Amino acid sequence: MSAPEFHVAGLGNAIVDVLSHADDNFLVAHGVEKGAMTLVDEARATQLYDALGQTVQVSGGSAANTIAGVASLGGKAAFLGKVRNDQLGTAFTHDIRSLGVHFDTAPADRGPATGRCFILVTPDAQRSMSTYLGAAQDLTPADVDPEVISRSAITFLEGYLWDPPAAKEAFLKAAQIAHDADRQVALTLSDSFCVDRYRDEFRKLVKDDIDILFANEDEIISLYQVKTFDEALQAVRGDARVAALTRSEAGSVIVVDGEVHVVDAEKPSALVDTTGAGDQFAAGFLTGWATGRPAAECGRMGSICASEVISHMGPRPEVVLAELVASKGL
Amino acid sequence: MSAPEFHVAGLGNAIVDVLSHADDNFLVAHGVEKGAMTLVDEARATQLYDALGQTVQVSGGSAANTIAGVASLGGKAAFLGKVRNDQLGTAFTHDIRSLGVHFDTAPADRGPATGRCFILVTPDAQRSMSTYLGAAQDLTPADVDPEVISRSAITFLEGYLWDPPAAKEAFLKAAQIAHDADRQVALTLSDSFCVDRYRDEFRKLVKDDIDILFANEDEIISLYQVKTFDEALQAVRGDARVAALTRSEAGSVIVVDGEVHVVDAEKPSALVDTTGAGDQFAAGFLTGWATGRPAAECGRMGSICASEVISHMGPRPEVVLAELVASKGL
Repeated sequence: MSAPEFHVAGLGNAIVDVLSHADDNFLVAHGVEKGAMTLVDEARATQLYDALGQTVQVSGGSAANTIAGVASLGGKAAFLGKVRNDQLGTAFTHDIRSLGVHFDTAPADRGPATGRCFILVTPDAQRSMSTYLGAAQDLTPADVDPEVISRSAITFLEGYLWDPPAAKEAFLKAAQIAHDADRQVALTLSDSFCVDRYRDEFRKLVKDDIDILFANEDEIISLYQVKTFDEALQAVRGDARVAALTRSEAGSVIVVDGEVHVVDAEKPSALVDTTGAGDQFAAGFLTGWATGRPAAECGRMGSICASEVISHMGPRPEVVLAELVASKGL
Repeated sequence: MSAPEFHVAGLGNAIVDVLSHADDNFLVAHGVEKGAMTLVDEARATQLYDALGQTVQVSGGSAANTIAGVASLGGKAAFLGKVRNDQLGTAFTHDIRSLGVHFDTAPADRGPATGRCFILVTPDAQRSMSTYLGAAQDLTPADVDPEVISRSAITFLEGYLWDPPAAKEAFLKAAQIAHDADRQVALTLSDSFCVDRYRDEFRKLVKDDIDILFANEDEIISLYQVKTFDEALQAVRGDARVAALTRSEAGSVIVVDGEVHVVDAEKPSALVDTTGAGDQFAAGFLTGWATGRPAAECGRMGSICASEVISHMGPRPEVVLAELVASKGL
């Protein structure tokens, strides 16, 4: 096995976020599930957009955000995901490449437009997401470049890929290539409603195919259908070799080979928009893990990266994370 | 003369802003004039975009930002400007209409893409702009709806319209219609480099065609080619009936029929990005003026609106300005 060229390769839905402030009444009036990611069709996307106030457009996508964070931490990173060759697709491509990320998936030249996610940020800094997948649903196994996956220390997959059928096949192909090359495979459960949709398949994945699992409290409780965080912790200890469980301001719990580490949250300078908190936690953890740091230190890197992204609007870091982490003594 | 339906109608280049953080070295390396607005062609726009880091896309355009501010203050507002029927044009249209602004200029269905402005925000919160006009340069006199202009108390024009030749004709047509209907015409000088390009024409406009002039310190000094702010003040007192001169943290000076009012700046909660400061000052002033407030109070409304927009990234208010102004006792 040669030394890997990339610390992390991410595979995910390539999405441009359309951010808007909204209050709770707006969510109720427009049937938006608070705190969740809901898939919408084109008609519903148009209807929702028409009702929104002023918006900001910024490149997003869960795994893509994580990969942007890995690059900001100085890690070598690659991304695989599908956009169309339209203005939003061009912006997505520009933004991720501007960070030095290897991104070479061919854009679709016909079919649906680049996918977008309407993110409503309520005054409590919570985000509620309505995603129109668009071109992202046309990611297929043919888009999975074996050269990239086999040369990445960790391949990082998002649970959201289970939604578009062809993307799920791409996910499984990437996991297979990674393992065949003796690399590690990481998964984020993405969202508790996503876990609801695919619980049995995700449980099997965690048990059989995944080396590193990311989940927040709601997601891990939903995965095992238990009542408390601790029950979920005990369940995942038996299933996953490595699990990083995030609990917002209560910090995170890291499990490695059955050993449990409890890591404090990093206090943000301000709490503005929680979009991307989980994605950036994963960026910090994965970069630490791919460079051989101890588990608790990986968790602390995750906390620091998450604290930065929730201090401003938008899902990607606005500072050089490598400098931020260094300034905290890591 | 019937009562006007709109407080303010704005005519300007319809532009989507592409915001990015950059340091001074980047500006030097890429030949970007600090603090100015420079016009660029498509090749240069592409070259600059390739060099930029991660970006945020948000609807902009100087007069359009002002109109967005007027609407946020509860004023009735209209906008006239040209986009293409592409993704950025759709976003521009959505954003301005979402505020209740009347925007009905037909989008171009061919020709250049929707115009965009690359805004580099340096750590000192200054912004340096490179504008590719795109579809905005196809605004023509035929796009000026006499119904809208003649029913607006004030028609607000940006100096930047002098750059695309057809837009300049649209500007003059709008001013003529407004005056024929006994309405007022306001102009912002936009940028000191813009004043350099069109000094003689702008001086004639201010003397003969404009009721209300907006300029910052650099612009008014450039217009009269004098050394000090006070010399410019004395010059403009003889030329313009109403002038609102802004001086950043030194506040503003308002001239009405030769009478001079000195207004303090409003301290922002944070200084993040000065983009849109002048546009939002104009929004506050014009809304006050169109609703019959005294000159100093109009200036104070301008200061409050400017202080809000410089406390965050992006050129448009993120709060309801009517509530902000009311909370300050106005």
